[in-house]
Amino acid sequence: MKLVTYINNNREQVAFYIDGQLYNLSEADNRLPQTMMQMLEDWERLSAIAREAEANIKGGSLTIESRDFEQVQVLAPVPKPTSCRDGYAFRQHVAAARRNRKVDMIPEFDQYPIFYFTNHNAIQGPGPIDCMPDHFEKLDFELEATAIVGKKGRNIKAAEADSYIAGYCIMNDMSARRLQMEEMLLNLGPAKGKDFSTVIGPWMVTPDELDAYRIPAKEGHTGAAFNLKMTCKVNGIQVSEGNVGDMDWTFAEILERCAYGADILPGDVIGSGTVGTGCFLELNGTGKLNNPDYKEQWLQPDDVVEMEIEGMGRLVNTIKKVDTDFSILALKK
Amino acid sequence: MKLVTYINNNREQVAFYIDGQLYNLSEADNRLPQTMMQMLEDWERLSAIAREAEANIKGGSLTIESRDFEQVQVLAPVPKPTSCRDGYAFRQHVAAARRNRKVDMIPEFDQYPIFYFTNHNAIQGPGPIDCMPDHFEKLDFELEATAIVGKKGRNIKAAEADSYIAGYCIMNDMSARRLQMEEMLLNLGPAKGKDFSTVIGPWMVTPDELDAYRIPAKEGHTGAAFNLKMTCKVNGIQVSEGNVGDMDWTFAEILERCAYGADILPGDVIGSGTVGTGCFLELNGTGKLNNPDYKEQWLQPDDVVEMEIEGMGRLVNTIKKVDTDFSILALKK
Repeated sequence: MKLVTYINNNREQVAFYIDGQLYNLSEADNRLPQTMMQMLEDWERLSAIAREAEANIKGGSLTIESRDFEQVQVLAPVPKPTSCRDGYAFRQHVAAARRNRKVDMIPEFDQYPIFYFTNHNAIQGPGPIDCMPDHFEKLDFELEATAIVGKKGRNIKAAEADSYIAGYCIMNDMSARRLQMEEMLLNLGPAKGKDFSTVIGPWMVTPDELDAYRIPAKEGHTGAAFNLKMTCKVNGIQVSEGNVGDMDWTFAEILERCAYGADILPGDVIGSGTVGTGCFLELNGTGKLNNPDYKEQWLQPDDVVEMEIEGMGRLVNTIKKVDTDFSILALKK
Repeated sequence: MKLVTYINNNREQVAFYIDGQLYNLSEADNRLPQTMMQMLEDWERLSAIAREAEANIKGGSLTIESRDFEQVQVLAPVPKPTSCRDGYAFRQHVAAARRNRKVDMIPEFDQYPIFYFTNHNAIQGPGPIDCMPDHFEKLDFELEATAIVGKKGRNIKAAEADSYIAGYCIMNDMSARRLQMEEMLLNLGPAKGKDFSTVIGPWMVTPDELDAYRIPAKEGHTGAAFNLKMTCKVNGIQVSEGNVGDMDWTFAEILERCAYGADILPGDVIGSGTVGTGCFLELNGTGKLNNPDYKEQWLQPDDVVEMEIEGMGRLVNTIKKVDTDFSILALKK
């Protein structure tokens, strides 16, 4: 299933995405709820009902009203997640960033799968991203995949952790690099460099839909892995290309760590971390390393950021500048 | 007002704390809700009603049933916060930690008030703290004060930010130092070092109750400041002593930064960061600097941690060891 949340009669509504059309779950079967969070809170039971309803729509035995996906206001699949963690799963991204800074690869990367908490109240879907003047000081995207939790868990092992994942989607972890670099000098975060927008969408795809793309996890690792091409275009020009299968740490291993002595909850969103070549920070660093005359690129007002992951759709956002001169950088003492 | 959340008939209930007794808000006035989150979501209107009800109870014109504070199960004042950020406001703590590591004070500390996001789903109140084997690898407390947001805001200035604070309470930001140190080698977080428990309580005190303790903010700083002694005892022995008035960055300044290009929301919890001497990590470092034979101290199973801040009460927790040998440190590759 591909599940979209969109605005219907001023309320959020979860719907099947089938061939460009949206079919409301709550209209397809009256046992199904209105919102994605309600689905996730009882995922095992409700997803089985939903799967049957979806088969009936696809098979033609159930006919209900549909809306054109392109004509509605699409929200994040989970508009108000329970939390948002972001991982650090792609070795290539970390190695390139460190090579660009002329420091050695850090051996601890390969020893345990770290993550941090980011602002789950700044999760958004496709559409405009409101940025403040300070955010435009080296404004960046980050191309990631994300897992969405569909079952409460604690102290679960990697071998069983994939069963806690309801589905996956694309993530654009927006980053204001100057704010981020300044706060990280003090060894906390990032927080302010990331807290204004994290985009997920356009839909959540369930793991079964990705079966054809399954590959073994990397050697020594445990959990589901998928051969899914990832790209990012800015203003129509492709700048990033990677693959979900390049994740060194699996979502299952990240979840095992997340759930150690702490609850993971339905509606938790867990990002993969940035894929290699998946942000201007890395691309600029590599560019300058190879060519001293390389001109840095950062996101500008009205830029269009377009991310695609096979099976997960296309996530399109436009960068907008808030009409204000308020700057916390200017408040620096 | 001092507002406590406790378990009443298996549900959370917000109550006035008056002289050791709890009086349910929803019994004192039928316009008042059952939970603290409902109070915070309409704080300006409901807190005025509550203040009048409290005055009537104190004045004797309103008589309702009360419960003994010591006889009920007290939860965090906001049991399910909207988010939890932790600041870094006390210069003395940062300077001591750096001196102990033999590195210079970092000038950026004085330039902008940083924070990070921690696990709001691990907020708890007084009572047992469940710790896993890995957490006991250098298990620590952190003595802090915290502000609780009572009004949605965005792009607010420090000069107006105090009006967004519904009240304050004590915070014990529990820390597993080995996990924290390992993950922070990779320049993210802390996350796993902190995500198992953050204690707040025992009540939220409203700013008006602290009027007698108001002092000017430090030179060059903006916002409310309070002369309130802070202490922490472990097993009855005082180990930390500081003062809320030692905060260099005010809560108003931290809020200004939090709200830049991002919403602050009713139920957001924002910690001050650790007061000087307010954790074993700092105390051990200072101890070893002054005496090479100093024996490090960390929290052990069944230890009792008792924090007090003038006007904010006494927050008591007992460290409990979960009966398992599951270790993510042992999974290190």
